[in-house]
Amino acid sequence: MKERMAAYCAATEAYLQTCFEKSVPQKTLLEAMRYSLLAGGKRIRPVLVLEFCRISGGDWQKAMPFAAALEMVHTYSLIHDDLPCMDNDDYRRGRLTNHKVYGEATAVLAGDGLLTAAFETAASAEAAPETVARVVATLAGCAGAYGMVGGQQLDLEGEHKTCTAEEIHEIHRLKTGALISAACQMGVLAAGGDAEKLQAAKAYAESIGLAFQLRDDILDVTGDSVKLGKKTGMDTNKNTFVKLYGLERCEAMIDEETARAIDALRAFEDRQFLTDLAQYLATRDH
Amino acid sequence: MKERMAAYCAATEAYLQTCFEKSVPQKTLLEAMRYSLLAGGKRIRPVLVLEFCRISGGDWQKAMPFAAALEMVHTYSLIHDDLPCMDNDDYRRGRLTNHKVYGEATAVLAGDGLLTAAFETAASAEAAPETVARVVATLAGCAGAYGMVGGQQLDLEGEHKTCTAEEIHEIHRLKTGALISAACQMGVLAAGGDAEKLQAAKAYAESIGLAFQLRDDILDVTGDSVKLGKKTGMDTNKNTFVKLYGLERCEAMIDEETARAIDALRAFEDRQFLTDLAQYLATRDH
Repeated sequence: MKERMAAYCAATEAYLQTCFEKSVPQKTLLEAMRYSLLAGGKRIRPVLVLEFCRISGGDWQKAMPFAAALEMVHTYSLIHDDLPCMDNDDYRRGRLTNHKVYGEATAVLAGDGLLTAAFETAASAEAAPETVARVVATLAGCAGAYGMVGGQQLDLEGEHKTCTAEEIHEIHRLKTGALISAACQMGVLAAGGDAEKLQAAKAYAESIGLAFQLRDDILDVTGDSVKLGKKTGMDTNKNTFVKLYGLERCEAMIDEETARAIDALRAFEDRQFLTDLAQYLATRDH
Repeated sequence: MKERMAAYCAATEAYLQTCFEKSVPQKTLLEAMRYSLLAGGKRIRPVLVLEFCRISGGDWQKAMPFAAALEMVHTYSLIHDDLPCMDNDDYRRGRLTNHKVYGEATAVLAGDGLLTAAFETAASAEAAPETVARVVATLAGCAGAYGMVGGQQLDLEGEHKTCTAEEIHEIHRLKTGALISAACQMGVLAAGGDAEKLQAAKAYAESIGLAFQLRDDILDVTGDSVKLGKKTGMDTNKNTFVKLYGLERCEAMIDEETARAIDALRAFEDRQFLTDLAQYLATRDH
């Protein structure tokens, strides 16, 4: 997995480096957008786009704009999530959050700019117009009020009450899961994959999304804040899976979901990378 | 003009009324989005989309999703612009601003949700995929960091200094003009209009955009806050055209730009409505 992962990440970084470089008067805005976009991160979502494109029979390099679009959406959501009126975080990925460096107003606009640029970037792909239209619809559907943004709202509302198991699952299915689902689906769409592959990609996404969030909640309790690049123990007022199920049950659920994700890959012939990725995400320490 | 305007506005309201009605747990978010989307407003941008579609030979009813998408982008920009960290406005269109009703966090998310939904709505149009792809690219290009959002950033930066004439023009060309340009272009694109029509639409947009902003700045000084639905005299710390040129020169410029806009319409046969609209925008009192 390591080599291919490195190739995907390098291609993603190289592509993102070329974004928002035009010389214009609003250079501070572009700088703020690049500050967060190029702050590192695991680039899991672009990797999922590129690999699902490859194993669906497509040329993954042509899916780069879709991968970058997804990372822009992810990055914008972090900038807005960190704002004082939201989670009020000072650090993200080991660096000061966007509004701590550029001020709140520019941080709001940098997020808006990245979200908008995601769709422009997706539309710029060298792909059949049908593919572009489907990718845009999928990305917007998963990122919006019925997807990620809806999950952020539920997460906010959940801070003031004790959520049921169903509510906590819904929060994470939308807040984290929807964008991971978009990534996997967009890869298949980029390659023109059939409905069976699309369904398998969704199932894989759902399981690794849940496992990912379970691990995130565990790491907030047991993790190393240096490795994580953010403070731990921050979720004490939040409804987390650890609070709901306890550490042991969460670990068992991660194993179950990882097995389920790997099972979903049967629709694809070349599934080693995504098998390894599911296992890596399940056992990561940051 | 009145009848057609009423038909376009009614169709726009009817379409927007159907948006975000699904029954989901994040109902407060959808309510916040609808609160601002359905708060009235002149619906100038949808009207421009629909009329440019019609006079370019298209079926304007099929362009409704594009018109609605544009109104969603416009509405989101107002919600974010009104936030305490931006303009900190309590009233908009005669009603409490979004964050005054729903709180800042939900207002940020409502804006994000509307912006994302704009692209999903555009992608849902019954149009050739080529058209959808071009519309998405145009909308994103005009709304983003090199367009409207870039203008908002320049506007923020301008509050702390005295801008040159060139800077003030650039702020408004981006902040107000870019989305009006998107509207006119999207109408032509929806109808599959040629490059000459697209160019004419851009020229018309540029002139009415400038006239629109000149009138806005004048009304902030001379207007009636009841008719306007917002406080006047709010721009005293801002770099406005009135401060730059004075009232008299601004009025003369509105006349010049309106004439220029009408001239640009020569590329179209049926230009009465847009001629009247340019004149209405030039002389409006709210």
